[in-house]
Amino acid sequence: MTATVPADLASFLDVHDARIQRELDAFLRIPSVSARSEHDADTRRAADWLAAECTRIGLTTEIIPTAGHPIVLAEWRGAPGKPTVLVYGHYDVQPAEPLELWTSPPFEPQVRDGKLYARGSVDDKGQLYLHVKALEAHLAVRGALPVNVILLAEGEEEVGSEHLAPFVEQHAKRLACDACVISDSAMFAPGLPSLLFALRGLAYFQIDIDGPAQDLHSGSYGGAVINPAMALARILATFHDADGRVAVPGFYDNVKTWEDRVRDRIRALPFSDEHFRAEVGAPALGGEKGFSTLERIWTRPTCEVNGLLSGYTGEGAKTVLPAKAMAKVSCRLVPDQTPAEIEQLMQAHVERIAPKGVNVKVTHLHGGNPWRGEPEGPFFHAAANALEAAFGKAPVLTGEGGSIPVVGDFQRILGVPVILMGFGLPGENAHAPDEWISVGNFTTGMRAVAAFWDEAGRLSS
Amino acid sequence: MTATVPADLASFLDVHDARIQRELDAFLRIPSVSARSEHDADTRRAADWLAAECTRIGLTTEIIPTAGHPIVLAEWRGAPGKPTVLVYGHYDVQPAEPLELWTSPPFEPQVRDGKLYARGSVDDKGQLYLHVKALEAHLAVRGALPVNVILLAEGEEEVGSEHLAPFVEQHAKRLACDACVISDSAMFAPGLPSLLFALRGLAYFQIDIDGPAQDLHSGSYGGAVINPAMALARILATFHDADGRVAVPGFYDNVKTWEDRVRDRIRALPFSDEHFRAEVGAPALGGEKGFSTLERIWTRPTCEVNGLLSGYTGEGAKTVLPAKAMAKVSCRLVPDQTPAEIEQLMQAHVERIAPKGVNVKVTHLHGGNPWRGEPEGPFFHAAANALEAAFGKAPVLTGEGGSIPVVGDFQRILGVPVILMGFGLPGENAHAPDEWISVGNFTTGMRAVAAFWDEAGRLSS
Repeated sequence: MTATVPADLASFLDVHDARIQRELDAFLRIPSVSARSEHDADTRRAADWLAAECTRIGLTTEIIPTAGHPIVLAEWRGAPGKPTVLVYGHYDVQPAEPLELWTSPPFEPQVRDGKLYARGSVDDKGQLYLHVKALEAHLAVRGALPVNVILLAEGEEEVGSEHLAPFVEQHAKRLACDACVISDSAMFAPGLPSLLFALRGLAYFQIDIDGPAQDLHSGSYGGAVINPAMALARILATFHDADGRVAVPGFYDNVKTWEDRVRDRIRALPFSDEHFRAEVGAPALGGEKGFSTLERIWTRPTCEVNGLLSGYTGEGAKTVLPAKAMAKVSCRLVPDQTPAEIEQLMQAHVERIAPKGVNVKVTHLHGGNPWRGEPEGPFFHAAANALEAAFGKAPVLTGEGGSIPVVGDFQRILGVPVILMGFGLPGENAHAPDEWISVGNFTTGMRAVAAFWDEAGRLSS
Repeated sequence: MTATVPADLASFLDVHDARIQRELDAFLRIPSVSARSEHDADTRRAADWLAAECTRIGLTTEIIPTAGHPIVLAEWRGAPGKPTVLVYGHYDVQPAEPLELWTSPPFEPQVRDGKLYARGSVDDKGQLYLHVKALEAHLAVRGALPVNVILLAEGEEEVGSEHLAPFVEQHAKRLACDACVISDSAMFAPGLPSLLFALRGLAYFQIDIDGPAQDLHSGSYGGAVINPAMALARILATFHDADGRVAVPGFYDNVKTWEDRVRDRIRALPFSDEHFRAEVGAPALGGEKGFSTLERIWTRPTCEVNGLLSGYTGEGAKTVLPAKAMAKVSCRLVPDQTPAEIEQLMQAHVERIAPKGVNVKVTHLHGGNPWRGEPEGPFFHAAANALEAAFGKAPVLTGEGGSIPVVGDFQRILGVPVILMGFGLPGENAHAPDEWISVGNFTTGMRAVAAFWDEAGRLSS
């Protein structure tokens, strides 16, 4: 076991620290919002920027088109007989709205109190870029890597990674490897490195309710025409029962119970409900009866409204009976639920209970499978050793409520373990205003990944 | 009884028809949206324009400031011993949004198929202006009016007429009269002149739900934090029971039952549910069980969502758990409900059922009392005669689901009957895109009002 990060690599990263930060800033300044077609050119620019950087450090790099945003594939194959490891990340980011809630503009990176604020700082450009820099350290200092490496970065993670799984399937031979490594998650707490063994999946859809052909005067028509906004509220209100359980028929049919040993590990983690409540700033916590907060987030499925829009929402009062109402709704999934199954159940439920005076449409937006890994195996232990070397503490095992849709795909298609080694932190505001990454985690993360390559180089292919 | 509109007045209006239309266009071009502070200067401009026109035709005119938009007061007191009649209208208009649903721009009047399209064409600038022109006809042709006239136009009708009742109270002596006349409503059908005897009131408020301090990642937090949008939906869903009745405790306590003779009159009107359904363009009608469509609109109170906003509402998918959710809600009221009583009931209900994990705020936006008049008396019959003279048919008695908050105030403060003589038509899109007034109703309406002054002149003060 390595007790510390190899000194030659650590020294290189020390010397080049300021340059690396400037490069990361440049990457973060590109507003690669994959969900917004007006940012398509920016998203492409982020791919180009990343590919150029991979080429510069000595990787053989290609930008491979898909039907959506392209995939950046950078390879180093100079270690015959050694294992091959695939590193996955994404260069696209979430939309930054509402802009007025950012302390500094989302695409103008700014460090405050040891945190680097920018859209994509932690999700996932910062975590992707620390991998690039760990590879650079090896190649610059030693002229080689201890293993063969494939770095794969996509530009559609925030819109469902629609073209990634087909791409991996089509290029399975080229992408053949012994393990995948992904850094797109958070550590359980500051100073506590973490390896993830569970991710929730996602079924995201939109409900559109159409009533009258246009907005009506709520006086001249109100009371005799079904109000689409009210119909929507009544539909959404049926999604949960009084105990916070999802009340849509069949929703829990394929939910696997988690073993006691898993629940015991979760209970053993240092966690305070009050601290968590204060962090989110809500007056109280709530959720499904019979489960702790971490169990609710890591092991239980959800159904959440992500957005609502209907009628008049401006200043003052306007007495309209709205023609339409819209809700964006997403379910977080756990094994063995699938996005297709859950979306179909939700759609059938919505159509069954919709009142006669409105038309209802349910539109698929995106989805991803839930995933659960095995916290065992040589690459898992290599990662644990590297994290301990860099952070000075053995990693804990954690779950994560968010989705990285491709994790299950990599495991299924390539048939290899996926190691989830994340360097975010709780409260990092991924997907929200004021997203940040800890500057310390970024630099220590680079060192951990650099150490990981040495650990992996000791394993047989 | 006058069988026809006096020939001298009709002839004047014929000759000046094109000029009058041009003047109305100019009035409609001013975007006097009282709800929007960015239109304050426009709203003021509409008051100035109207006052100048009243002065030009021979009325003694003042623009009287209020704490909000000013009141235009134009008088003619040259008929001592004759009755005094107060004409009320409003020069402000509803917001025009959503602009993209207008066939022609809301503040660029356009005639298509005998309809004049513009925001305010029917509600209420067009109907207010036909009164000005009927007065002009008398003054121009005969140099005098048969009665004393006070024309009072306010600029806050679309935001609740907050300063009108205090103004009328404060100036009750100056505004003393024998009857009020208001044209701010619709005829029951084309060619069927109508006198209104019932208006619903309004209690309009906003519900704001605050949960977490900011939008959260729906994966990392979803399931353990109460979702404000879902909480809002669950609150709104309690507002009605399965029979379409408002389920808020106490809501119907002060609702007066309508007499059978009133319900019989309503049932006798020529009305087709299917025609009404096709006009609004909804797949089916709906509402409170046990009442016909017209009864639902004219005689029963409602509770409607006017607007919803929460979280992410743009293109594509964004996995946020929203920090806030907002609903604009308004209740239409019937005698003897009051806005204060109903808003207090709604607020208490919302606060009682709100879940623990969110904060709820109910904010008053505006309100108005319901009203019911007596379809009897000399001025009522004078109006009926004038309408029959102009339209060639005796008027029917109708209700109206919308609110003219000041009607009850005039009746209460001035102690005189209020005659509601409207020239709109069903489907006129008041408060919606493509608002219009029938060009025929505008011109025939001018003639009816001109005839009304002669009828009123025959009454004793």
